[in-house]
Order: sequence, then C-alpha cells, then structure tokens
Amino acid sequence: MGCLGWRSVALGLILLEVLFSVKVECFPGLFDRISRLPGQPEVGFQQYSGYVTVVGKKQRALFYYFAEAEVDSASKPLVLWLNGGPGCSSLGVGAFSENGPFRPSREVLVKNEYSWNEEANMLYLEAPIGVGFSYSVDDSSYEAVNDKITARDNLVFLQNWFLKFPHYRNRSLFITGESYAGHYIPQLAELMTQFNKKEKQFNLKGIALGNPVLEFATDFNSRAEFFWSRGLISDSTYKLFTTSCNYSRYVGEYYRGNVSPNCSRVMSQVSSETSRFVDKYDVTLDVCISSVLSQSNILTPQVIRKWAVCSNVLDYELLDIEIPTITIVGRLVKAGIPVMVYSGDQDSVVPLTGSRTLVNQLAKELGLKTTVPYRVWFEGQQVGGWTQVYGNILSFATIRGASHEAPFSQPKRSLVLFKAFLDGRPLPEAF
Amino acid sequence: MGCLGWRSVALGLILLEVLFSVKVECFPGLFDRISRLPGQPEVGFQQYSGYVTVVGKKQRALFYYFAEAEVDSASKPLVLWLNGGPGCSSLGVGAFSENGPFRPSREVLVKNEYSWNEEANMLYLEAPIGVGFSYSVDDSSYEAVNDKITARDNLVFLQNWFLKFPHYRNRSLFITGESYAGHYIPQLAELMTQFNKKEKQFNLKGIALGNPVLEFATDFNSRAEFFWSRGLISDSTYKLFTTSCNYSRYVGEYYRGNVSPNCSRVMSQVSSETSRFVDKYDVTLDVCISSVLSQSNILTPQVIRKWAVCSNVLDYELLDIEIPTITIVGRLVKAGIPVMVYSGDQDSVVPLTGSRTLVNQLAKELGLKTTVPYRVWFEGQQVGGWTQVYGNILSFATIRGASHEAPFSQPKRSLVLFKAFLDGRPLPEAF
Repeated sequence: MGCLGWRSVALGLILLEVLFSVKVECFPGLFDRISRLPGQPEVGFQQYSGYVTVVGKKQRALFYYFAEAEVDSASKPLVLWLNGGPGCSSLGVGAFSENGPFRPSREVLVKNEYSWNEEANMLYLEAPIGVGFSYSVDDSSYEAVNDKITARDNLVFLQNWFLKFPHYRNRSLFITGESYAGHYIPQLAELMTQFNKKEKQFNLKGIALGNPVLEFATDFNSRAEFFWSRGLISDSTYKLFTTSCNYSRYVGEYYRGNVSPNCSRVMSQVSSETSRFVDKYDVTLDVCISSVLSQSNILTPQVIRKWAVCSNVLDYELLDIEIPTITIVGRLVKAGIPVMVYSGDQDSVVPLTGSRTLVNQLAKELGLKTTVPYRVWFEGQQVGGWTQVYGNILSFATIRGASHEAPFSQPKRSLVLFKAFLDGRPLPEAF
Repeated sequence: MGCLGWRSVALGLILLEVLFSVKVECFPGLFDRISRLPGQPEVGFQQYSGYVTVVGKKQRALFYYFAEAEVDSASKPLVLWLNGGPGCSSLGVGAFSENGPFRPSREVLVKNEYSWNEEANMLYLEAPIGVGFSYSVDDSSYEAVNDKITARDNLVFLQNWFLKFPHYRNRSLFITGESYAGHYIPQLAELMTQFNKKEKQFNLKGIALGNPVLEFATDFNSRAEFFWSRGLISDSTYKLFTTSCNYSRYVGEYYRGNVSPNCSRVMSQVSSETSRFVDKYDVTLDVCISSVLSQSNILTPQVIRKWAVCSNVLDYELLDIEIPTITIVGRLVKAGIPVMVYSGDQDSVVPLTGSRTLVNQLAKELGLKTTVPYRVWFEGQQVGGWTQVYGNILSFATIRGASHEAPFSQPKRSLVLFKAFLDGRPLPEAF
C-alpha cells in the first residue's frame, strides 16, 4: 500500500514537461506529440498533450493528455477518462496516479504495468475549465460553473479534438471516470446521443462509472452504515447519524451556508470518532501524516497560476450534486448504451452499498432481468470482487480491497475489470 | 499479507521438537526446559514444554508451551493463552502463528519481533483434551467434552502447573485468547474467582477476549450485515439472511442435525455468493488456493495420533455454543476483574459489530459510565483501531486491518493493545 501524497513532488516537474513538450508533424494532432517525458522509460507507443479551445461567449482552453495503446493502437478503442471533484485533475490523479502508463517514483517515471493503455487509447481531459492546466483568458469563466456548462464544454472539446485526431473519429468510444464524474459522464453521454440523432458524430459504445455520485442521498447516506459496520463510529453515533441528521441533509445545509445546530452536533460527533487520521477514501490504507498536496508554478500564455491536484480557482455550483444522474443512466441504457458501475469496496465517500442499491433499483425500473447473478469474479486465482449483470447491458461490480481511486490501490484487479468492460463481457467467473 | 497455510509444513517438525525437548534441572518445571528449538535463532529467554496431568475419573495429560519474557521475566506478569475452535491448538495457531516468540519460515524459525513475551511470560495451553498434543489414555475422554469439563480441566491444569512453577504462583495472572475461548476464558476465570473465595489460589488481574463468541445469536447474526456491507452478498440475499433464516437459527438446526428446507436454501445462496475463495476469517486477505492443513505424526506414550491444527478426535458438545458467556463476563466485572473485548475488524466469523453491541449492552446493564468515549487509538503514527472504555474496567477495541487471528495479521497493533491491557491503561490516544 502507498499513498497519493508523496508522488506529488515529482509530478509538478513532469506535468510541466507534458505542457511544453517537443512537437513533430501530418495530422493536426501531431503538433501535440510528446517526444519524451522527463525520466520516462523507453516505450513503444505515442503520447500527445495540448489544448483544445472551446470558443463561445468566453474562450476556454481545455488541456488533454493522450496515451495511445501500447500495442496495435489502431485496433483498440478510444477511452475518455474524467476525474471528479468537482475540480480534480484527470492528469494528476487519473493519468499519473491511477491508470496511465507511468507513475512518478521519486525523480523519475516508472512504467505502470497495469496501465489501461494496454487495452485502449487513453484520453485524459482536464475538465471543467479551471481544473489542472485548463484555463480561460477571462477569470469569470471559473465562476458559477455547473454540470450543464461542463457537459457542453466536454462535448465541444471532443468534437474539436477529433479535428486534431480525425482517424479516431469512427473508433469505438468509451467514457469512464470516477466520483463526481458520475455527474459528468452520464450528462456528456446523453448530449452525445442527442447529437447523434441529428448526425452520427460519436461512436459511443459504453460508459463505466467508478464510485460515482449518481443519486446524492442514497450515495452519501450509505456512509453512515459503512462507518458503523467497519467500526469507525459507535452504535450510539450511528443511531444519531441515521435519525437525527443524515449526511445528505448535512451537506445540503452546508452548501446552502446554513448548518442547523442539530446537524452540526451530529457531524462533529461523527468527525471526532472517525478522526482525521483515517483516509475516508480508503479506510484500510495507512495515511501520510505530512501529506501536503504539492503545487508547481506553470506559465500559460495569458495567466500565471498554480497547478493543483484539485482546482483552487474553480467556483462550481455545488448544489448540482443534488441532480440525480441515475435517471440519465437509465435513459442511456434504454438507448442501448452499456453501463458498468463499479465500486472500490474500501471507500467510505461513495460506498459500494449505495451504488449497488441504485443499480439494482434501476434494473427493476427498466424491467431488466438478472443475466449474471451476484457472484465473485476473479483476477488470477484471487477474488477480484463481486458482480451482477442485468439484461446483458447494465452491470455492477466491486473491486476488493480498492479505494475511491480503484486503479491506484488495486491496479491489477482494475485492469481486469476494464478489459471485461471494453469487451462487453461479464467479469471472469473462474480461474 | 500472507496466509496461515504455508507455515504448517515447517510447523510439524518444530512441534515434535517442542515435545521431545532436552531437559535440565532445580524447580520441578526445569525438567521441561527446552534447550533449543530446531532452526531457532539465539534468544535470551527460557522456554519450557511438557505435560501436566489432570487426574480424575479419566486421567488426562494436557500439553503446554511456556515462553518466559524476553527481558526481566521476574518483573513481568504471567499470561495464559487459549485458542478456540472448539478444538484448535494454542501451540500451532497462538504460539507459532500469532503472538509467540517465533514463526516458522520455510525450514527455520524466525524471531517474531512483536511477540507477546516482550511484555509477559506466555503460557500456551493445548485444551481441551484431544487438542494438539493433549491426550488421554482412554479414548472415551474425547467424547462428549463440554464447556464445564474444559473449564474444570483448565483450572486443574493451572493448579498443577503452579506445582511445576511455584515461583509464578503469586505473579499477576492474565488470561487471553480468541474465538471460542470467549467460552473457555470467562468460565475458567469464574471458577478461579469461586476458588479464591475459599483460598486465594489465583492472582487473576484481567481477561482479554479476541473476536470472542459471547452471545451466540448476537455474534453470529451480525455476520449478515458484515457480508452485505462489504459486498459479499447482494441486497436480496441480505434480506433473506435477516428475515427468512438467520445464521444462529441455521447453526442451531445444523448442530441438531435438522436443517429446515428454508434455512438450507438461504445458506446455500449465502455460500454461493460469498464463495469458498474468500477467507471468512479475513475478507481482505488473499487465500492460499492449495492450503492444506499439515499434519505430523507424533508418538505419545500410549497412543499414536496425528497432530492437527484443529483436533480430529475431539467430540465437543457443540450446542454449548448457545450458552451465553457475556453474563459471566458481567459477573467478573462486578467482582472487579478488568475485561477487554477486542475485534480484528476484517473478520466475518465473529464480527466487531456484534461484540461491540454486547459490550455496550453489558456496560448499560452494569450501570457503568463511559470513561473513554469511542475514539481512535494509535500504533505509531497510524490508527490502530477504535476503542471505548466503561467504568475504567470494561473495554472494547477494534484492531484495524486485523483478521479473526488478530496477532497474525496485525502483530504490531496487537502488541500495543496487549501492552495497554496488561498495564490497565486505555489504548494510546495520540502519537
């Protein structure tokens, strides 16, 4: 086990290099080619990074990092990865701590042998505007950003990215990510299906959502039981946390700047018992006591801003968290888009129990029969987690021993799950 | 992480040596001194092993292994350790896989740097008769063994052991162990307090119970929620497992040889979902696929029997499991004996939630106020688990990331807990 914190030191330098990489040339995207990242081992695939501008009322430049598949990239699908937050970097978290080809190790990069570019061409997008290297000339772009703006910007990003990489336009496209990307991804996918009705622009083949926020109350309130069943809170605090004030009510009050004395008391009790020395994103993981998220200064053409793992300039409409996206997931399934919801089972922030209930309820509402009954799945000779599939199109899976950032803590099991998702097959039933 | 299985290969040979060890002399126990175990590193403390006979209607010979404290043993307490089962070996499991001074590593023994003999003189007893090396001349001794017989034999064992080691008679005595020892220990301790009323024979200072069976229904039925909250069973199976047939009902029916079709159906569903490839004693641990419990042939004066981790000759009165021992724990606390109940939090067999509820209820019944509120405790700079203390005499603690055999999977955290228990102090509050 490790922790995310220590990696940040090397990350700053590497990310600078991703930004100012040497360019070469034939299709427009070639100008974004990275010749080599600092301290990077020899690899056989191409990498690209750069900006795609989204022109509208306010001009915005969205930053991406693209790692083609390690072997035979032309035969492999395109996968867009989005981290959540809202406001966290797909580059710093997704690409360089989770499922990208490299992970920083002190001063150098080492190969991640369970990189998802073993199976796909991986496109990491820094979204929405204000996150990571994505920026706007106009500071007001960072204000009042919401789910609608994000989905629209992400759609335009992809349309324009295909102008840079036209040979990927008809490639099978999957979208995946985690946490608040449970909002971004269904909303983006729905926009795509709407666009496709007029003119088929996106060859969308499926979405996978890791520890996603799909229906705020169910997701967040399952935290109480998670804490209690693992010993993080006492019987009496559990009772308070399910009757006197639950987590969704507290968050709602907090975002509205109006926390009731009742909720304040309950949350203070919960916080005291769970303690700040336990990583809520992986309750079994040891924590880095002196974990300070590193920041490196970067120069963009118009602004000088600090790069941060999670944005310190973005002002997101946090109440959008209350928009249920599980209903959008339902419409996508109805439209024939395969959906997988997966859960790192050590995560208390969006616990597996809430996600499982939501997927199960959705299957019932859609009238989907269970096609793979709830059972273990295997990575090698070990249980990788549990899974259930409904109507061969909607599936739920846990990743055993995995955190909120599943590919960080269980990279091997996560890669097996990713491959099954791309192949449209149930997870391995035996070994 | 590792697994218990592979260690068994070396264990057989070592245990033979414990049995036929070289003896020297001055107090009677000196004849039981072990000069050196095979492959053992150099150590500065003394070890003993041998038989203590319990003479009664049927003569029985109980086997012990005694490792004095590493440093300054005369100033340290005496601790009796008992494994559960009923029928599992305190030598094979407790001493050589959990908290004894050595652990087997291929052909040799290596030092366990978190051995409990750092803090105490550790006495491991193979009980009841039929377990490990403990035997009877008369095979019928293995039949219809029950809690009453076990407690009485263990008491007589200790009385006679003090004849061998008279200088330990007035030493502070603690009893600890795990699992079904939740029956053995309170019953033995209560007999001691009864004996002490006539004549003070035992200087009993406290008992500690790890993942103990204390009240069968509460302990075993908490398994359903444990499975569900960690993703081992589905929502629908959880419902069945709490309404249609719960675990205590199933076990009761099973032990009475009369499983109802209803319980049979539910248990078959639960077993299928949880799968045999998951270690129920530590759900996060990877399993040894080819784990075969090793057995080594031993020669005792009268019988030839195979040594086994858990007895294959003992016929225990399994329905004794339904005797609640939490009430005995209550009487011990009333009599002024400090009690600690601790839970490895990855164990589904006797889950932390059941134990916590039982201790909490007991505190209420005894009118004990909370003296240490539910909070984290520390081992080094990491959270070792959670704890709560009632009336400065009854305490509950979890060990984070620990299995049913807590000192096996979390030796460092377990040693910190053990030290606090011996010192009669709350677990470390800060670092």
